[in-house]
Amino acid sequence: MKSIFRQVALIGKYHAAVPPALAASSRAALEDIANFLAQAGCEVVVERDTAASTGLNGLPVADVAGLGAQCDLGLVVGGDGTMLGIGRQLAQYGVPLIGINQGRLGFITDIALDAYRTVLPPMLAGEYEEDLRSLMHARVLRDEQCVFDALAMNDVVVNRGATSGMVELRVEVDGHFVANQRADGLIMASPTGSTAYSLSAGGPLLHPGIAGWVLVPIAPHTLSNRPIVLPDAAEITIELVAGRDASANFDMQSLASLLHGDRVTVRRSQHKVRFLHPKGWTYFDTLRKKLHWNEGQ
Amino acid sequence: MKSIFRQVALIGKYHAAVPPALAASSRAALEDIANFLAQAGCEVVVERDTAASTGLNGLPVADVAGLGAQCDLGLVVGGDGTMLGIGRQLAQYGVPLIGINQGRLGFITDIALDAYRTVLPPMLAGEYEEDLRSLMHARVLRDEQCVFDALAMNDVVVNRGATSGMVELRVEVDGHFVANQRADGLIMASPTGSTAYSLSAGGPLLHPGIAGWVLVPIAPHTLSNRPIVLPDAAEITIELVAGRDASANFDMQSLASLLHGDRVTVRRSQHKVRFLHPKGWTYFDTLRKKLHWNEGQ
Amino acid sequence: MKSIFRQVALIGKYHAAVPPALAASSRAALEDIANFLAQAGCEVVVERDTAASTGLNGLPVADVAGLGAQCDLGLVVGGDGTMLGIGRQLAQYGVPLIGINQGRLGFITDIALDAYRTVLPPMLAGEYEEDLRSLMHARVLRDEQCVFDALAMNDVVVNRGATSGMVELRVEVDGHFVANQRADGLIMASPTGSTAYSLSAGGPLLHPGIAGWVLVPIAPHTLSNRPIVLPDAAEITIELVAGRDASANFDMQSLASLLHGDRVTVRRSQHKVRFLHPKGWTYFDTLRKKLHWNEGQ
Amino acid sequence: MKSIFRQVALIGKYHAAVPPALAASSRAALEDIANFLAQAGCEVVVERDTAASTGLNGLPVADVAGLGAQCDLGLVVGGDGTMLGIGRQLAQYGVPLIGINQGRLGFITDIALDAYRTVLPPMLAGEYEEDLRSLMHARVLRDEQCVFDALAMNDVVVNRGATSGMVELRVEVDGHFVANQRADGLIMASPTGSTAYSLSAGGPLLHPGIAGWVLVPIAPHTLSNRPIVLPDAAEITIELVAGRDASANFDMQSLASLLHGDRVTVRRSQHKVRFLHPKGWTYFDTLRKKLHWNEGQ
Repeated sequence: MKSIFRQVALIGKYHAAVPPALAASSRAALEDIANFLAQAGCEVVVERDTAASTGLNGLPVADVAGLGAQCDLGLVVGGDGTMLGIGRQLAQYGVPLIGINQGRLGFITDIALDAYRTVLPPMLAGEYEEDLRSLMHARVLRDEQCVFDALAMNDVVVNRGATSGMVELRVEVDGHFVANQRADGLIMASPTGSTAYSLSAGGPLLHPGIAGWVLVPIAPHTLSNRPIVLPDAAEITIELVAGRDASANFDMQSLASLLHGDRVTVRRSQHKVRFLHPKGWTYFDTLRKKLHWNEGQ
Repeated sequence: MKSIFRQVALIGKYHAAVPPALAASSRAALEDIANFLAQAGCEVVVERDTAASTGLNGLPVADVAGLGAQCDLGLVVGGDGTMLGIGRQLAQYGVPLIGINQGRLGFITDIALDAYRTVLPPMLAGEYEEDLRSLMHARVLRDEQCVFDALAMNDVVVNRGATSGMVELRVEVDGHFVANQRADGLIMASPTGSTAYSLSAGGPLLHPGIAGWVLVPIAPHTLSNRPIVLPDAAEITIELVAGRDASANFDMQSLASLLHGDRVTVRRSQHKVRFLHPKGWTYFDTLRKKLHWNEGQ
Repeated sequence: MKSIFRQVALIGKYHAAVPPALAASSRAALEDIANFLAQAGCEVVVERDTAASTGLNGLPVADVAGLGAQCDLGLVVGGDGTMLGIGRQLAQYGVPLIGINQGRLGFITDIALDAYRTVLPPMLAGEYEEDLRSLMHARVLRDEQCVFDALAMNDVVVNRGATSGMVELRVEVDGHFVANQRADGLIMASPTGSTAYSLSAGGPLLHPGIAGWVLVPIAPHTLSNRPIVLPDAAEITIELVAGRDASANFDMQSLASLLHGDRVTVRRSQHKVRFLHPKGWTYFDTLRKKLHWNEGQ
Repeated sequence: MKSIFRQVALIGKYHAAVPPALAASSRAALEDIANFLAQAGCEVVVERDTAASTGLNGLPVADVAGLGAQCDLGLVVGGDGTMLGIGRQLAQYGVPLIGINQGRLGFITDIALDAYRTVLPPMLAGEYEEDLRSLMHARVLRDEQCVFDALAMNDVVVNRGATSGMVELRVEVDGHFVANQRADGLIMASPTGSTAYSLSAGGPLLHPGIAGWVLVPIAPHTLSNRPIVLPDAAEITIELVAGRDASANFDMQSLASLLHGDRVTVRRSQHKVRFLHPKGWTYFDTLRKKLHWNEGQ
């Protein structure tokens, strides 16, 4: 078997503070995968923070920009969170990603660690399903200045402080007034994020092929303020009108202390994230498994 | 003022059995509007059933096919139901529609009868907002034969009989298995239909710009069977697996007595329905008014 | 071990048309249990329809009234449906029930068939948790005449026909007007029924200790028509105001063809159903298992 | 007309920082009502903070404890918030309350300021509907020590911080484990509070006659974690298991910075709050008006 991918980025849990025992087990898994890839004819480059936190050495190392420039595939060993984080960063380089999961399978990381030796070879040979995910480009404007700029794969959330009451948020779409909503907060979720926080707050599932975001109010004061699916070609703005201690959250990144008049805007990024799945994969199979459909109750 | 539309179809409540008093009032309204259009330089053609049920005469009359062939605008006097019914039929001819409402304004019929003299002139002169709505093309297949074929603007619904228990429905998208759902029924709604029955059953609002349908289970047995928004480019199939006395409903049209194995399929029609609204109209203004947002509670 | 219960009714799936293979397996299970009870010093009486449909013979047989008069315990072998059905009938006699489940454990039948030999002895000796459930007494009034009278353990439901639109239902509590609701239907559920159909339609869970019913609209036209929990000491009336082909359903029993003006009334029955569970049983343990809480998602 | 109430407490918006114009208008309203009560033979005592913030003088003044000891009726001029606040404080004295509303009528303050002259006389003469509301007694235990003790009329809420993720909360009822819930938070609402925050978060309405609280998760991770109505005779405990920056809120009172292991317990207070309404008042009329039922959509 020969891989059609030449340069493969290897990415693990790249965040700090991995306990020593876990680091050792991650390192062993990554080493196995690296050897496996080398035998398939790939040149493996390890993501720098992954190398640092697991102690994996003996292989070329690069930061995300370097991986984006050199690699034609990313192999992520971790959970959905790891995959979303690196996906967000690599989107601008168009590098596709495959996810190998050490624990319970996720919505997007669907290859079990103990199965990769049989699942990967056909994928490396070009037999895969491509799964494109849209990406949110969010900004926070204060007095016409951009004070925060972020990409999000799951959601952009504006919400109230812990001990304060509701916030009031003014929503506009392409400059058209939609509504002033009083609620605990508002979630704007991508199709990818529609299975996460948005679902808990009462939002619908969005198939990844839907060119839209869903705007879901959290505990809205007005009962008819229902989730609404909006075209992702539009610019959506959420302005903080009233409420204390509000914050804006972009996947895991937060901007605390929003001020009245601050405007959070969301546009579709020009880049998409590319996930590769084993041949025969469908979005619906994953959904059915993850949401325990057809299991009886 | 000169109308850019030459031949204008005039359509009222075209269904049978209008009480005499109502017929007289409808006729008077239609006559006023016909005169008004004539003064704007339009040739008015009255929809045949409208003429018959209101007793309006003295003007050319045509059936829907005739209107479609001749007219470059339709003027509908009635509520949302009338508008959706004629929209469904005229879609294949590409004739745009303006709705004048005799009662409470609707989601799509947004010109009050007593305001048309000031609202229509700029619209006839070409100053309007165009609002395209997608149309569902549904069929029922029994033993590979098509036994029912219908268009729907709002929704396609499969549901259980009144005194029987749940139905079990198998859902597929482009031949991929999604789930077997046990519920009172399943609603597949267009963006237009997302403010109707689907909303009552817990579905989200879909902006008309969303190229998708929402599939909403009615009282699903499995709590994680949540509404899901699917691309309208796909073919969606609902098969009756179990349950008695089930029926399929396409806007107002019904097929009772579905059999086990019957498959209801939905595709996007190649035609769109074109609604015209006064300049400055936005979908969001209508939504806000109809759903009583920002009115306090 | 000696049972404190002297006369024990043995009840299986007592409805007609059991396939021969199933009848044989049920008979075998019932015979085992009967022997077991005899060894514990109980006199066993078999419910008449159970004996007939399984072919179990050689033991005294009685109908439900006879069981109610003679027995101080009922042993039900079946699922929740069987248990609810016999519970409804035996409530007036105050006979407590123990449920042995041949399949997946239910909300109230919580002893697995293969575990009864170890679970029953302490229960027969008086070591059990008692679980009292309230019972709905429903009537349908037409022109001041009672045309239907039924008990229900789960719910009383008024709903629309399959191909007709919404019904309009007028709700009163002790003669006080509550609302006119337009919906697919209305569910009035007991705490026992709150985990069944009512839950699917968006109702809350009610602990069995709550002296109330929950009224849950199915797909209500008005979004603020939310589930409401009402005291079971009140008389609740649902009147059919508009809509065709409506029916009323009381657990599994149906009255089709409700007429406009028909009034369905619900009061709390003076009887309670008594379920016995193994010592240490709690309602919450059952709930957690059946609703898959704490299993991850 | 003679009042059966001798000593009447007069209570306005008793919180600080009323703007001068508003204070003058409140003072005028309170003076009018005080004169009106005097003419009905009542001795009027003004709540101390009300007198201070409006500048009302010339009448006896007392603090809440004094009012409780002396008065046999409280007349509250304000909104639902004012009424709930003073109701909570006066509950232990058994003083009934009448609410006069200066703005939009509330759920419990249902006499318009401009109508009191005709509505009050029969009420003072003993013609009224009594409406008893249960009261929550909540405590926060840290290392077996009580670090917070509060009464709540609406709800007790445990929720997460603004920029942190979900909290994990362990729920127990009378020492029995219910579930570990991961969510934005948990609301425990009384029947009175069931029309407030709880309703926004998806909870049912509870009639004031229901002897229960409803536990409503806010954006729960597990979709089957549905609202549950629990007997108010039980002690309910919510323990913070995981999550940062969590807080506990009791009506308007907050305890920030809950620690892991902190336990919030709720019991029913032995006191009830007594509201008096005009003869013919029903809970359902209020509900219908406030929730805009039967208004069309």
